Amino acid sequence: MRDFQRDHSALALNTATLGHNVAGGGAGWSPERTVDACAERGIGGIVFWRREIEGRAAAVGAYARAAGIRVVGLCRAPFLVGPLASQQPEEVADDFRRAIDQTAELGADVLTIVTGGVQAGTKGVTRSLETVTRYVAAAASYAAGANVRLALEPLHPVYGGDRSCLVTTRDALDICDLINADNVGVAIDIYHVWWDTDLARQLARAGERVFGFHLCDWLPHTTDVLLDRGMMGDGVADIRAIRASVEGAGYDGPCEVEIFSANNWWKRDPAEVLDIMVERFRTVC
Amino acid sequence: MRDFQRDHSALALNTATLGHNVAGGGAGWSPERTVDACAERGIGGIVFWRREIEGRAAAVGAYARAAGIRVVGLCRAPFLVGPLASQQPEEVADDFRRAIDQTAELGADVLTIVTGGVQAGTKGVTRSLETVTRYVAAAASYAAGANVRLALEPLHPVYGGDRSCLVTTRDALDICDLINADNVGVAIDIYHVWWDTDLARQLARAGERVFGFHLCDWLPHTTDVLLDRGMMGDGVADIRAIRASVEGAGYDGPCEVEIFSANNWWKRDPAEVLDIMVERFRTVC
Repeated sequence: MRDFQRDHSALALNTATLGHNVAGGGAGWSPERTVDACAERGIGGIVFWRREIEGRAAAVGAYARAAGIRVVGLCRAPFLVGPLASQQPEEVADDFRRAIDQTAELGADVLTIVTGGVQAGTKGVTRSLETVTRYVAAAASYAAGANVRLALEPLHPVYGGDRSCLVTTRDALDICDLINADNVGVAIDIYHVWWDTDLARQLARAGERVFGFHLCDWLPHTTDVLLDRGMMGDGVADIRAIRASVEGAGYDGPCEVEIFSANNWWKRDPAEVLDIMVERFRTVC
Repeated sequence: MRDFQRDHSALALNTATLGHNVAGGGAGWSPERTVDACAERGIGGIVFWRREIEGRAAAVGAYARAAGIRVVGLCRAPFLVGPLASQQPEEVADDFRRAIDQTAELGADVLTIVTGGVQAGTKGVTRSLETVTRYVAAAASYAAGANVRLALEPLHPVYGGDRSCLVTTRDALDICDLINADNVGVAIDIYHVWWDTDLARQLARAGERVFGFHLCDWLPHTTDVLLDRGMMGDGVADIRAIRASVEGAGYDGPCEVEIFSANNWWKRDPAEVLDIMVERFRTVC
């Protein structure tokens, strides 16, 4: 395993951790100010959300690179299925391509995919996962042409109905197997998979298809399954064991901290959040 | 598959569906009145909670049987691990034995086990599951002596931190394999497992170790992961497919409706809830 105590350059900030992905949330920092704050602290990478870079993806990407910050990824492709997705398939496919274009303009490596939940008129996740597979397969070659990798992110089963019919690493890899494209892989987020005793086996299966690794923690008495994620060390996830499995699979890329926390971290000074994030990364991850 | 359209005698009520397991909740019906209401509707079984039958388990069991109602089970063994469990191992073991005794006095077939969450000072679920295994193994022979079967119920992964480190059917069966006692099996609750694409395979593995089958539904936009369960047909779970797998494993026992619903079903007249429960059981399960 890499030694983050001595070198935290693998640390990446997902701007959601500062509340930036919520309208009216966060401290009002611009992407540029956030980049500068990362650079000052030796944070090596950053992940933006689409609404932050809309219309000026190339400029934001260039600014980050000039500051020595790698643009790790973009959040995220549109919901493909379920109650939160557009019910017009062409709209979904068009927006998916726009997200790929933005990822390329930003100069980011990876576009994250959150699938959306169970399709209207169906029961269980199976048929929705089939629809997801068709959308991602259709987008894969377009993404390859833009040098963009697509990372399917399994979400916690609590989101199974509305936000993600894709809830296990096993299911995500099954889709990757079906699509069988070099630029289609998975993103592993501790919040979503910490409970899964099959994870180590699935990560061994995944090998180089792990395109992203997201850090946070699961608070045992969570008050909100969407907006009460924990800072690393404050919860019950075995972060170090999961990192060992992720790195054992061959992953040596950025470790992205993504914490939705409406009532705690989003209320604090972003500078303080970043300082604590660095300290926790070095000591508990 | 059994034909419930024509015969709903396999239907069992878990009294939690009427709010009976919450102090001050429910309509104030006594166990006897609830039994009578089930008998009037051709509901074949009932499951009580400990607080309802405390001190008079034998009498309540006898009343139910005299009314032609099978006492399917008792909810539940104490939390064995995690933040909601007693931190005194002897207290846990003693209360576990008392729950077994009450199950026997009631004349119920099955005591359900909800394990509790992650042990203090540990990370992830692995060590907590080992502790659970030790407690259940120690209780199994005591339960066998009382003719009580123990059903490990995997809970939804959203409860992983506090209420149940046991979150998949796979993990539950792994514990059964380790203990290897005829009276240790699993309870399958649709609310907890509906998202699991590995479920059919695990149920085939389970075979006769399925000791209970619980019905309800997963509402896609759930407002409370503890107290907002759906009536069968109102959510996205593929109830019929799961029942096919459960029955394919060899299960031909009661189907127990257990719906925690503080803001909907618990606010209605229990008679109405029972009528709708019967209708949904016959038409959508």
